[in-house]
Amino acid sequence: MEVKVKKIALLGMGTVGSGVYEIIKRQKQELPAKTGCMLEIDKVLVRNKAKYASVVPEEKLTNHWEDIINDDSIDIVVEVMGGIEPAFTYIKEALTKGKHVVTANKDLMATRGHELLEVASAHDCDLLFEAAVAGGIPIIRPMKQCLAGNNITEVMGIINGTTNFILTKMTEEGMEFKEALQIATDLGYAEADPTADIEGYDAGRKLAILASIAFHTQVTFDDVYTEGISKITSKDIVYAHELGCEIKLLGIAKLEEDGIEVKVHPTMIPKDHPLAMVKDSFNAVYIHGDAVDDAMFYGRGAGSLPTGSAIVGDIIDIARDTQFRCTGRIGCTCYKQIPVKHMQDTHSSYYIRMKLVDRAGTLATLAGVFGENQVSISKLLQTDKEGDTAEVVIVTYDVKENQFAKAIDTISSMPMIKEISSVIRVVHEE
Amino acid sequence: MEVKVKKIALLGMGTVGSGVYEIIKRQKQELPAKTGCMLEIDKVLVRNKAKYASVVPEEKLTNHWEDIINDDSIDIVVEVMGGIEPAFTYIKEALTKGKHVVTANKDLMATRGHELLEVASAHDCDLLFEAAVAGGIPIIRPMKQCLAGNNITEVMGIINGTTNFILTKMTEEGMEFKEALQIATDLGYAEADPTADIEGYDAGRKLAILASIAFHTQVTFDDVYTEGISKITSKDIVYAHELGCEIKLLGIAKLEEDGIEVKVHPTMIPKDHPLAMVKDSFNAVYIHGDAVDDAMFYGRGAGSLPTGSAIVGDIIDIARDTQFRCTGRIGCTCYKQIPVKHMQDTHSSYYIRMKLVDRAGTLATLAGVFGENQVSISKLLQTDKEGDTAEVVIVTYDVKENQFAKAIDTISSMPMIKEISSVIRVVHEE
Repeated sequence: MEVKVKKIALLGMGTVGSGVYEIIKRQKQELPAKTGCMLEIDKVLVRNKAKYASVVPEEKLTNHWEDIINDDSIDIVVEVMGGIEPAFTYIKEALTKGKHVVTANKDLMATRGHELLEVASAHDCDLLFEAAVAGGIPIIRPMKQCLAGNNITEVMGIINGTTNFILTKMTEEGMEFKEALQIATDLGYAEADPTADIEGYDAGRKLAILASIAFHTQVTFDDVYTEGISKITSKDIVYAHELGCEIKLLGIAKLEEDGIEVKVHPTMIPKDHPLAMVKDSFNAVYIHGDAVDDAMFYGRGAGSLPTGSAIVGDIIDIARDTQFRCTGRIGCTCYKQIPVKHMQDTHSSYYIRMKLVDRAGTLATLAGVFGENQVSISKLLQTDKEGDTAEVVIVTYDVKENQFAKAIDTISSMPMIKEISSVIRVVHEE
Repeated sequence: MEVKVKKIALLGMGTVGSGVYEIIKRQKQELPAKTGCMLEIDKVLVRNKAKYASVVPEEKLTNHWEDIINDDSIDIVVEVMGGIEPAFTYIKEALTKGKHVVTANKDLMATRGHELLEVASAHDCDLLFEAAVAGGIPIIRPMKQCLAGNNITEVMGIINGTTNFILTKMTEEGMEFKEALQIATDLGYAEADPTADIEGYDAGRKLAILASIAFHTQVTFDDVYTEGISKITSKDIVYAHELGCEIKLLGIAKLEEDGIEVKVHPTMIPKDHPLAMVKDSFNAVYIHGDAVDDAMFYGRGAGSLPTGSAIVGDIIDIARDTQFRCTGRIGCTCYKQIPVKHMQDTHSSYYIRMKLVDRAGTLATLAGVFGENQVSISKLLQTDKEGDTAEVVIVTYDVKENQFAKAIDTISSMPMIKEISSVIRVVHEE
């Protein structure tokens, strides 16, 4: 039997692109057995051809998109350039021409993914993006297929490796944020401009994609509340341990009766929660469904070969689909329109660390103000004293965000309060 | 547009069957959006119809297989009876008639799965069995699809919830095995005859299936070495902690240069290994691939709804496949024939606890005998002394099984050795 060749065009040859290139090379002998066809990287779109001359045969290198979009022999386009444009235009044009697309582009999928999925559907094409969330960890396909019998009500994830690395350093070596960030930068975990990572934007994009799939509703990055880790101190981590917790940057998506909550923020989670043991640059996504109960998916959230692994998995799936003429089999699964709640209407439990005047009755007054604002106190630790100043740590019960904000507003203007040092949300074991 | 109805026959209405029935009921409104068709449980095969009269409408209940196999309107057969026969015959007949099959039957899939996958392939049918390994945890589809670009070299799993529950009780409450087993029995985690769980047979069946998929080679239950947890004592758990480890019943499948290793045995693993935090009746499967690096899948390995979740995921996939006429798209992926190694040719590190005569020179003699048998000692703890008896704990470096057996043989016949109390394999962090 003649084995068909499926031709792939790779857009971009950076960290992820070179991972894909390497894996396809390693798997050359096995791919026909896995897919029923040969898979060949036929074109590689780069800006500077000379830079890649030693890795990619010259005839495959191009710096013109036209060479790819006008080549009818190209079956699959793999977009690993990143950014919104020209990625959006290239993917749209490829799908319109009946080419199948694999992308690792979370920025794009979190903002205009739904548009592209519609184009894919209109042309019976596959548009797969397993690599866009949590790198090498299988999560999109498990949610769309294996867990499809569930009503998923919660997704919580450590979905940014850079911040998890920084928090791990701070936890295990008692470092402050800036020092840990410097190490992450030196090791290449953090980019020159680390804003997207440390402010939670990167995690927010991935969370938008996860929430869309979990709740069958279009959630975009604009819907996600984000708060980064730059204000976390080693002191807070010590208190977290005292409270039996670790501090992690979590993406949290919840399906509540009145809508969807999507938020990224530093979070105290109990030490025995499976997410608490996710260290260094590892990622993990924790899911609760009405049938499966709790499940967690753990692994490498970034890197050349791990992200390449997810992309090649998608390529293999497309190759199988084309063999069986069933491309477009599972497209957009957003068949609902559940509203996304405003952050102020969501609930959380809170840890507050503050400095106050060390005087009889201060704590009673403080508790009173919390009470007047419907904030109930679950734990109170009074710790260091320095002169007339006492440090107090309070953990609240679940409270509505705007109620809590009002309480903090009132408290911070009181003369007995010298400083509100930290405010961190807390997730309790169910 | 008219929505097609796909009819399902459910073989068995025990724990898992009733979970499937419940989930299909809960998902009734959503299934058309997910699959493009209606899914309806049309027949339920049970021994005693009267027993289920309050749950299942009478006209759906039958105790005759003929009512199902001869009904051409049945599209999907879900086998949740368990056991080899008549399950094998029913599944084979169903596939031969062009009906698609979902099964949770690990006993069957681990011994005769490959035969059935061939029948499925010959009739372009889907035969899916996500529920057969690790219950609700998505693992088979992630391996066959998401991780298909990897050369997987290792799979390690906590894939029996009963034994993990028992070991957790022993660890956290200092219980001995028998007491913990009694609690597991009282809580319904352990069956009246717990042999298959505690001797590692159940885990061995799941491991055979995992190894077949990971290494693209037919591995059956007969190939798997199994050793249970009944000899583990709370004392060993205390020593494990001293060595920075937890004791878990692991299924371990490795791809080595000279073949495949498949073994189930109690194992000491470092406390900071992700598998070490898997507690109670939870399951987890840890995978190493050349591209993805390390990944782990965690969740409920058993239970009515979690196992039902995996089955309904498979049913939904079949419904989608039938809509796109691409059933049989991913069948058996065993395109290699890698030999399975004999246990005696595999390697491991060992923990040995023994009692010996407390006399000068004893340890030197002992170390000498190990050395003569090419067993190198990595750690030695001399602990309790009672009269002229000392307890000694030794951890070895990696050693070939038959070399180690020879060393133990020699040592146990030496007069200075009063008792070899425990022998447990150890997995070190890479």
